[in-house]
Amino acid sequence: MKVLGSKKENIPDLKLPIKLDDVGKEIYQLINKLYPICRSITGDGLRETLRIIKSYIPLEIQEVATGTKVFDWTVPKEWDIRDAYIKNEKGEKIVDFAESNLHVVNYSIPVKKKISLTELKEHLFTIPDYPDWIPYRTSYYKESWGFCLSHKKYSELNDGEYEVFIDSTLENGHLTFGEYYLKGQQSDEVLISCHTCHPSLCNDNLSGVALVTFLAKYLSSFSLKYSYRFLFIPATIGSITWLALNESRVANIKHGLVAACLGDPGKSSYKKSRQGNAEIDRVVMHVLKHSGYDYEIIEFYPYGYDERQYCSPGFNLPVGCLMRTPNGRFPEYHTSGDNLTLVQPPYLLDSFNKFVSVVYILENNKKYLNRNPKCEPQLGKRGLYRNISGHADTGIQECAMLWVLNLSDGYHTLLDIADISGLEFGLIKSAADALFEHNLLKECSE
Amino acid sequence: MKVLGSKKENIPDLKLPIKLDDVGKEIYQLINKLYPICRSITGDGLRETLRIIKSYIPLEIQEVATGTKVFDWTVPKEWDIRDAYIKNEKGEKIVDFAESNLHVVNYSIPVKKKISLTELKEHLFTIPDYPDWIPYRTSYYKESWGFCLSHKKYSELNDGEYEVFIDSTLENGHLTFGEYYLKGQQSDEVLISCHTCHPSLCNDNLSGVALVTFLAKYLSSFSLKYSYRFLFIPATIGSITWLALNESRVANIKHGLVAACLGDPGKSSYKKSRQGNAEIDRVVMHVLKHSGYDYEIIEFYPYGYDERQYCSPGFNLPVGCLMRTPNGRFPEYHTSGDNLTLVQPPYLLDSFNKFVSVVYILENNKKYLNRNPKCEPQLGKRGLYRNISGHADTGIQECAMLWVLNLSDGYHTLLDIADISGLEFGLIKSAADALFEHNLLKECSE
Amino acid sequence: MKVLGSKKENIPDLKLPIKLDDVGKEIYQLINKLYPICRSITGDGLRETLRIIKSYIPLEIQEVATGTKVFDWTVPKEWDIRDAYIKNEKGEKIVDFAESNLHVVNYSIPVKKKISLTELKEHLFTIPDYPDWIPYRTSYYKESWGFCLSHKKYSELNDGEYEVFIDSTLENGHLTFGEYYLKGQQSDEVLISCHTCHPSLCNDNLSGVALVTFLAKYLSSFSLKYSYRFLFIPATIGSITWLALNESRVANIKHGLVAACLGDPGKSSYKKSRQGNAEIDRVVMHVLKHSGYDYEIIEFYPYGYDERQYCSPGFNLPVGCLMRTPNGRFPEYHTSGDNLTLVQPPYLLDSFNKFVSVVYILENNKKYLNRNPKCEPQLGKRGLYRNISGHADTGIQECAMLWVLNLSDGYHTLLDIADISGLEFGLIKSAADALFEHNLLKECSE
Repeated sequence: MKVLGSKKENIPDLKLPIKLDDVGKEIYQLINKLYPICRSITGDGLRETLRIIKSYIPLEIQEVATGTKVFDWTVPKEWDIRDAYIKNEKGEKIVDFAESNLHVVNYSIPVKKKISLTELKEHLFTIPDYPDWIPYRTSYYKESWGFCLSHKKYSELNDGEYEVFIDSTLENGHLTFGEYYLKGQQSDEVLISCHTCHPSLCNDNLSGVALVTFLAKYLSSFSLKYSYRFLFIPATIGSITWLALNESRVANIKHGLVAACLGDPGKSSYKKSRQGNAEIDRVVMHVLKHSGYDYEIIEFYPYGYDERQYCSPGFNLPVGCLMRTPNGRFPEYHTSGDNLTLVQPPYLLDSFNKFVSVVYILENNKKYLNRNPKCEPQLGKRGLYRNISGHADTGIQECAMLWVLNLSDGYHTLLDIADISGLEFGLIKSAADALFEHNLLKECSE
Repeated sequence: MKVLGSKKENIPDLKLPIKLDDVGKEIYQLINKLYPICRSITGDGLRETLRIIKSYIPLEIQEVATGTKVFDWTVPKEWDIRDAYIKNEKGEKIVDFAESNLHVVNYSIPVKKKISLTELKEHLFTIPDYPDWIPYRTSYYKESWGFCLSHKKYSELNDGEYEVFIDSTLENGHLTFGEYYLKGQQSDEVLISCHTCHPSLCNDNLSGVALVTFLAKYLSSFSLKYSYRFLFIPATIGSITWLALNESRVANIKHGLVAACLGDPGKSSYKKSRQGNAEIDRVVMHVLKHSGYDYEIIEFYPYGYDERQYCSPGFNLPVGCLMRTPNGRFPEYHTSGDNLTLVQPPYLLDSFNKFVSVVYILENNKKYLNRNPKCEPQLGKRGLYRNISGHADTGIQECAMLWVLNLSDGYHTLLDIADISGLEFGLIKSAADALFEHNLLKECSE
Repeated sequence: MKVLGSKKENIPDLKLPIKLDDVGKEIYQLINKLYPICRSITGDGLRETLRIIKSYIPLEIQEVATGTKVFDWTVPKEWDIRDAYIKNEKGEKIVDFAESNLHVVNYSIPVKKKISLTELKEHLFTIPDYPDWIPYRTSYYKESWGFCLSHKKYSELNDGEYEVFIDSTLENGHLTFGEYYLKGQQSDEVLISCHTCHPSLCNDNLSGVALVTFLAKYLSSFSLKYSYRFLFIPATIGSITWLALNESRVANIKHGLVAACLGDPGKSSYKKSRQGNAEIDRVVMHVLKHSGYDYEIIEFYPYGYDERQYCSPGFNLPVGCLMRTPNGRFPEYHTSGDNLTLVQPPYLLDSFNKFVSVVYILENNKKYLNRNPKCEPQLGKRGLYRNISGHADTGIQECAMLWVLNLSDGYHTLLDIADISGLEFGLIKSAADALFEHNLLKECSE
């Protein structure tokens, strides 16, 4: 990441000529590095992933013991896997964990035995509609074992005896997660959360993991108003565990986003928080509306990613989920098709830029008071207005100033003004800055 | 009516495999029985109608004397009619009450005289646009007489002298109405009202009268939360009279529906109560939305049926009107075309089912509190969740449970949750029942 | 203006057979009379304009001295001009103020010198897209000079020396404006404001100036509930000056309209007040909706005409702007194309009628209380209802009465009832009048 700020700078508007082009490639390279690792909701794959992330940002890695009560849940046994295969009668490995870690149902218990095809088939999972792809399946909370394979290979299985071998352990151990707290001027914080439990799947969710890593790195180079908390956690049990351990800190979370599915070519989509009209919802919608690209806004629903925990009624945090194509809506979802081809640097860069734009607005969404609320102040004598008048169009900068003056009444934030006027936030902020410099505005204390 | 419950059962969801197919036919047969009777807002036709209904349900029949003051109105004289005709010069009955009771303007005073065609025509009513149909006309509050006939017959009238004869009486007597109060666990009640004053007209409103009779009979076989009050009353003066005599009971009415025009082939339509967003409005809209058929929602307006009295500003009761094609919008309305062909058992059955579905939701629209509001409870360990995960789609039953858990925060009823989630009420109720059984919910006392 | 009322009459509904046809022509004739005058935000052209208006209505003309502080602004020097031209080397006047007062940049300082074409061009303004039209330009707040001319003429300019001559004065003097206060029964007032500062431009805004003159004259012939204040002021500095001098009176302004661009063939448009849902906004939208013509509603924005001052956050008055084609949206805007051909009597008449309709509703928008709120009162016995019933359609007059009765609950004004019912205000008012006469309503004191 070549372009970073100095610790004393505020975060710049991306509309300014900053060259972040390399970020897309760097995120992609991190995905590439993490792709081969077999992650799960616990275990060494997860630990290795977090160690790699720690080489980019100062991650604090935490371990929570099996059996720990976290609200209605219990931290499960730790799962580790070394090898697994199915051999046919000729002793040929027809399904091999070494080729793809999706081949084993995640959290499979150890097994080593010879069984008939009929019995074997009860433990096999395929996707008939996409016969070349291996599905991704898990059995976290029921002790079981199984293999996933392409439907093509499945169709070619002959009668006979098969040897199944899974060299795994499912024992007391730990659940591991990573946390990076970036302190800002305020204790009010922005939560950015991504799930790190999926094995070799790129869009869901190495794209989120790698993007959040670089977002954290980027933000750490600026002076920030908010504190930022970046969570790298296994889905569901990870967010539940974090919330259970950090209940007293939750009140600091003023805004939050879950980051997932951020590298595919689809349009950006935003799933609103349960609150539905939180500042984060309005900020993301503003960014997407002014992005110049198509996008989709999705009302909150109580399944999906970890927003379902953050938005459970006892917390009801203002946490939405920013994605490209949502989970379950692209055919490669939870299959071996979600690979290094599906995600590409330009889409990762575009997603990264949207996160940065969201942060930019959060950091700068102030409320001002017009010091001359009765009639307009005279902009011309301050050099803020052109001198020869009469044109049909008012310049957009002047419009922005007039909007800021008209709505800076103690009720409207800059984002409110941007949304009411239809103008982009950066334009409204520039106008407010110019007016503030000329002593025409004062900051509104909340 | 073959399928009835036992007194100890709650009303079942119609989605369950209950065979109510015969109800449509039974409603039709009752219409058929009531069709020949010449009803009016008072008189023996009305009494006979109520006696027949009383053979189905334990109706209480009440009589209110002519001259009784009811708010701004006065109970009118009672009208009874035995015979009426117009004879031509040859002594042939060219218009005969015995053929159709629509032939006489309802509430015509007695007359017997010979008059010219010119004078006769001042007392004749036709529908030029539908030359085969006899119109239905009334003159309740101005003493007058007249005949209704097909425009075809009218066009064939020759000059000459005509004998007009109406053997009616308009004298002090009574206004008659029927009431059936079905006691439930609560004194809060649901009002179901239909008008019984129309002569040989099927859709308006023998369809409503007969449907309400069978609805009352059906509901009486179940254990009910609400009390139900079924009114069989002459339009306008009947509801005004009932409200005047029962003013102290009105506060118990929590929901209500006027039933009219329920047997024609048109789509269902619902005219909202004056409140516009009352629970009954939301319930009926939910039922129609999930009925699988097209439907129409109509904002309240202060004319139409008895809802105009229930929704007068001094009462403003939450009473809407559930119909198929609304009054005045089908060509047969208030003509001899509104006959036993226009209404048919399948449409009557469909309307009946919608009333039952409305009652089902009213009876079951509870509010729960999630006992584990912080993060989701673990459904899997309770057997409420499938075990092998990773599919793109979450099962609809699981979605329903997650919706109920997420929104059971003390603010949302099950109907609220159904409407927000877009899922059908019965599905949300089943989910709530399952969660309640597993002690994951508690009932919210209002 | 031939049709005026008597001082004792209330303003009649225009739906009544009043012949106001001549008003369009009379407004046009006043525009014609004012067209040749070179107006500016100060000076003798403005004074002469106000003197002419004073020959129609008893205008009070006020003068405010140069240098007077008005909020953030200062009343500028007074500008007067007598002659101006550009001569070529042959001594021919190629641009002549006597031909069109648009030829000189408004507020040009005096100049008399010979300059090269190159230097001259720095002071010339044209419209390349409309090569036949002379633009209108001003330089109020920067001392400067310039000429405007058609792009055609500009393109024909040859190299050489030119003589430029502007015989103007820019000196301490006064800002002049006109005010007519028409006293009604209440001190609550309606503000009607138009800008009088534009030179030979018809739609913007001689149409507004002339229409307001005749509106004031017309209203002065009736007995009025509200007081009306008509302002004829230079744009921006005029409204700022008036507000600064009359700050204590501002609280009386309950409704207001800026009148501009009212004579062109475009559809009517209404720019809402900053409040957005003020009574004036709802009244104008009602009038336009029921006008029978297409129209456009525009949300408030803080540039445009003097509504930007009335709607500055420190005042936030309920003042909208009623126009035909809005400023800047017709090609002739601020050019010599905005001439006596662009505006026409039928459009001026239509605009006038809309202002009168707005006043009619404001004057009559009362709130009543139904004296018989429980059930409907019996309209028939009072002769308010037809006697033979049964028709599919309820007469519209009867519907209007039922709406008024149903919604006269102390919460709804007649305009509310009109908007909810979808019926035109005049119809609702007639119904309320009939019900009031029969003692079925009483007036609601606020």
